[in-house]
This record gives sequence, C-alpha cells and structure tokens, in this order.
Amino acid sequence: MGDVQALLRYVFQTENQLTIPVSGTGSAAMEAALCNFIEPGDDVLIAVNGYFGERLVDMAGRYGAQVDRIDRPWGEVFTPEEIEANLKQKSYKLMAIVHAETSTGALQPQVAEIAAAAHRHGALLVLDTVTSLGGVPVEIDAWGVDVAYSGTQKALSCPPGLSPLTIGARAREVLDNRKTKVANWYLDMSLLTKYWGSERTYHHTAPINMNYALREALRIVDEEGLEARFARHRTFAELLWQGLEDLGLPPRVPIEYRLPTLTTPQLPEGVEDATVRKQLLSEYNIEIAGGFGPLAGKIWRIGLMGYSSRKENVTLLLAALKELL
Amino acid sequence: MGDVQALLRYVFQTENQLTIPVSGTGSAAMEAALCNFIEPGDDVLIAVNGYFGERLVDMAGRYGAQVDRIDRPWGEVFTPEEIEANLKQKSYKLMAIVHAETSTGALQPQVAEIAAAAHRHGALLVLDTVTSLGGVPVEIDAWGVDVAYSGTQKALSCPPGLSPLTIGARAREVLDNRKTKVANWYLDMSLLTKYWGSERTYHHTAPINMNYALREALRIVDEEGLEARFARHRTFAELLWQGLEDLGLPPRVPIEYRLPTLTTPQLPEGVEDATVRKQLLSEYNIEIAGGFGPLAGKIWRIGLMGYSSRKENVTLLLAALKELL
Repeated sequence: MGDVQALLRYVFQTENQLTIPVSGTGSAAMEAALCNFIEPGDDVLIAVNGYFGERLVDMAGRYGAQVDRIDRPWGEVFTPEEIEANLKQKSYKLMAIVHAETSTGALQPQVAEIAAAAHRHGALLVLDTVTSLGGVPVEIDAWGVDVAYSGTQKALSCPPGLSPLTIGARAREVLDNRKTKVANWYLDMSLLTKYWGSERTYHHTAPINMNYALREALRIVDEEGLEARFARHRTFAELLWQGLEDLGLPPRVPIEYRLPTLTTPQLPEGVEDATVRKQLLSEYNIEIAGGFGPLAGKIWRIGLMGYSSRKENVTLLLAALKELL
Repeated sequence: MGDVQALLRYVFQTENQLTIPVSGTGSAAMEAALCNFIEPGDDVLIAVNGYFGERLVDMAGRYGAQVDRIDRPWGEVFTPEEIEANLKQKSYKLMAIVHAETSTGALQPQVAEIAAAAHRHGALLVLDTVTSLGGVPVEIDAWGVDVAYSGTQKALSCPPGLSPLTIGARAREVLDNRKTKVANWYLDMSLLTKYWGSERTYHHTAPINMNYALREALRIVDEEGLEARFARHRTFAELLWQGLEDLGLPPRVPIEYRLPTLTTPQLPEGVEDATVRKQLLSEYNIEIAGGFGPLAGKIWRIGLMGYSSRKENVTLLLAALKELL
C-alpha cells in the first residue's frame, strides 16, 4: 500500500499525503473527486467540451450541487480568462475541468492559470487526468490543482480496476469541515483516509490483486522515468500525425492543444467509419475507436498509451490504413 | 459478460434478468442494493445483530432514508414474528437484513418467512449474502428475496474486486418508478442495466480481468455443483466444531443457526488472543481473524470458505492449536 501511494505521488508530481487508488475504475475516482467536497446546495462550476465534462455535470447534480456550466464545442479548449469571467459570477465551492478529453483528443492548456483563477475566487479546482496521467505532464503541486483523478488502464498500462486520486491540503480542509456525512459510503475519503493512513483501519476489502498490478505498472513507469515516457508518447504521436496527414486523414484537434495519447483524425468523405474499423480489427488485429456524441462518424479515436505507444504500432496502423483506404 | 450473468443466476438460484457483478468489492454492491431503491425521506427498517447491520444503517442514512432499526445482541438472530411486529409500525419501503454475519458467525434462518412478512407490509427485502453465497443455500427466488448482494472473495473463492448483485421484478419496478435520479452515478442500476443488457451501452470501464476471474471461479462452483459444495462446507465445518469443542474452545453460536463458512470459537480465560493468532501465522502459515466490536478479544473468526474448506486445513489448524494452547 505504501509503495503504491509513493509511486502515485511520483506520477501525479505531488506531495499530497492523501494519494490513493480508489477501489473502482476511473469513474469511481471521478465521483469521489466530487462527492467528498459537495454538500447539498453548493454552487459548482463545470467546464464542458466533451463527454466527460457532461458526466461531471451529471454526477455533481446527484450530490445536490447547483451546477453551472461553461460550454465549448467538442474538441475545443478553454482560456483561463473565460473561466475566470464565469468564476466571478457566483461564490463557487468547486470547479471541475477535464485535462485530456477522451471523447475528442483535446488537451486543456494553462491548468496552472485556471487553478490560480479558481483560488482567487475561493473555489477548489478538480482536474480529470484519466487520459493524461503517465502520458503527458501532470504537475499537481506545481499547477496548484486541489483534486485530481485518473484511471489505471490508459497511459499507466495497468488493467482497469482501480482509479488514482490525489487530494491537496485546501480540499482536505473542505472535507474535514463538512456539515453532513459524505453522501456515498464506498467513496467516503474521511473513512478511506484511515484505511490508507498509518492506522490501516478496515473500511472495505480492497481489490488486492489489482493493487499488486498497479504497483508493478507504476514501478515500470518509474523505471522509464516520467520525462522519457512523455518524450516517447510525443515522438510516436508525431509520427502518427504526420502519417495521417499524408493519408488525407488530418488530426482534427489543432496541434497547439492536441493530445499525444489519443489522436482523432477527421474522416474524409467516402470513408466508411465502421467498415474500416471492423477490417482493421479482423484483418490486422488493431482496434481503434469511433467518435461518439456530436463526433460520431466524423472522427476515429486512436490511442497510443503507455506500452502501446511504440513505433511498430504506428507503422503497422499506417500501413494497414494505406491498404484499406 | 453473458456467462458471468448466467453463472451468477445459478449461484443465487434466481431467474432475475438483472443479475450482475458490480465493479467494486462487497460494500459497493451493498450500497447499490440500498441507493437504487431509496429516495430522500423513505422509511427503511434495518435488522442489526452485527457489524454489517450497522454498516447498512450508516449507508441507508446517507441516501436520505429515515432509518429505524431492530437490534439483537451480536451473535443472535431474528424471528420473523419480531420483524413483522416492527414492519407493522410504519409503511417501510425497504427492509434489510444480513443472512450470514461475518462479524459473529450467525446464520439468519427463515428468510422466506421474513420476505413474506416484508411483502405483506409493502416493503422490499434486501439480503446481505456476502459470507453465505456459494457456501450455504441461498435461494433468492424460492425465498422471495427482492435484492441480494455478495462478495467474490469468500465462498466463491475468487479474488476481491467485484460484488454480485441480483434484483427481482418487485425491486426493478421501484427503481423504474423513482422520482429522483439514483444519488450515486457509479452504482446507478438504471444505467448499468443498459450496460449489462443487450444494448451493451457504455457506462464505465469494467474491471475486465476481474470479470474473467469471476467467470472462472463460478465455472468451478458449477463444476462441483451447489449441493455438493454446500455438503462439503457443512462436513468440514462440523469437523472443525467437534475439534474446537475437544480443545475447550466451543463455538459461540448455537448449532441451530451456526454458519458453516465462518466459525467463531469462544476464547477461554488465559488464552492470549493476539499472541496465539500471531504464532499461528508465523509458525504455521495459518491466518485466522480476531473478533471486533463487542466481541473483540472474546472470539476468533475462522473461515472455511470455498477452496479453503478442506479436510487438511481443519486437521492442521486443530493440530496447531493443540500445540500452542
């Protein structure tokens, strides 16, 4: 347990004591990142530019938050200025934003500036790092993020089953000063703190095999080193981007805020989305995902995460697409 | 997914379509068994005769239930008559009771009569089968239980990480007629129904390795057959009980409602609880648990569950205790 916590602090680049794997997949830690800090009637601001922003809105509402949202079309990102303009409107207890949108391939820049804006207006910043942690820089302490969560099965290359969560001092204080019990027993961090703290007080039975798996996955991240890992993700993403451009499938997200872990090429007229993906799977053993929501049929979603971010995967996919298109 | 559901229906002895593994350990399914059916202000009745009854009270309260409780000292069980007397007091939407109390070793008899009483008074019956499923008879349909849940790591002999849950027609109707969203996104069965139904609509990423593990554990249960499995648990429990009597460590729970999967010998004066358990572990590689709550220091908790319910384990433990005491 201690090893997993120390290694998670390394990948999150944080000294937060309260850094743990939640005993459920990514959405469980997303829910923990909200329910521990929201009490009924609290004002909450959510930035929505994709599917997982929508999920944050849905979840926060279930815990009685008065949710306001800032919207951007799927695939775009936010400026700190427009977020601050919204933060000024009310006394928000918390705001949440997605760092890397799995539904669009956009990477939110200037998180430090957004955190500073949140703090100027008394709000906590919750950051979704599901598709960024371990693949692109995530600097919880340097950026001043109060709460962040992730999944194990993306750039950490571990099976799904746990979800990393880190909680800073400012958020911890909000948790400690709640007037009501956390409205979710399984994810109640005031109880889980004692389980993962020196007391090791029984809360629930942890998925032990998954914890061993995560320890090993994180050990491999540590062995490679974060800087080398980020560089590798960047290198092979750029190789993929160039190849897609050459094939007439340009990435949809502008390069300034394009995510290296997940690339979303725009499909040209005449390319049969599902047919090509089915052929990739059956003939080449390559699985890529389709778009969904407003991007259904318009993009593909190609993951190069953790172990799968390798030159041979990019070369094979590009060669296969060349044969199929 | 289909195999896991079919095999879970077999161990629960039910035809409930909505029978799934929840993507968290036992307490997650416990919470799902409550939060999907409770709306703020609902009257709920909980029978408490051990640690997990207390947990049910805590959880139900977090979802806004008005919780009443019937208490029995830890280690005792309830009669259908006393439960019905309480059910008459109010219009309870739901009542919950623990079939096999992991904290005491007591097995609640007459569940069918309790279910009938609940239905006479318009309440759903929720049953905790964490320490019974796969080790002693659990007959969801024959008994008329509306909602039941369990863990994977006890008598099913699978690693922890998932929690079986089954929901009958009466409970499904309550879920379908909610006025408010389920106050827990990750455990919302109205969404999970579509994930585990023929639509296979994405909800969260399931812990896939754990689902394969559960499929294999259930396949082994099926291969042995439930009747043979229950007989095996009973045979080796009786062997243990006799041996403990002979050593002056009589099981605390009367034989009429004693649990075969978990035996709780009463410690005589002069036996150092923690010292003996530590020696068992370090010298014989046997781990047994201590009592907690009002039973701390007064009992041990010896599990013979699934694969571990074997003659050689009983023989070794009894021989080791003989040497140590």
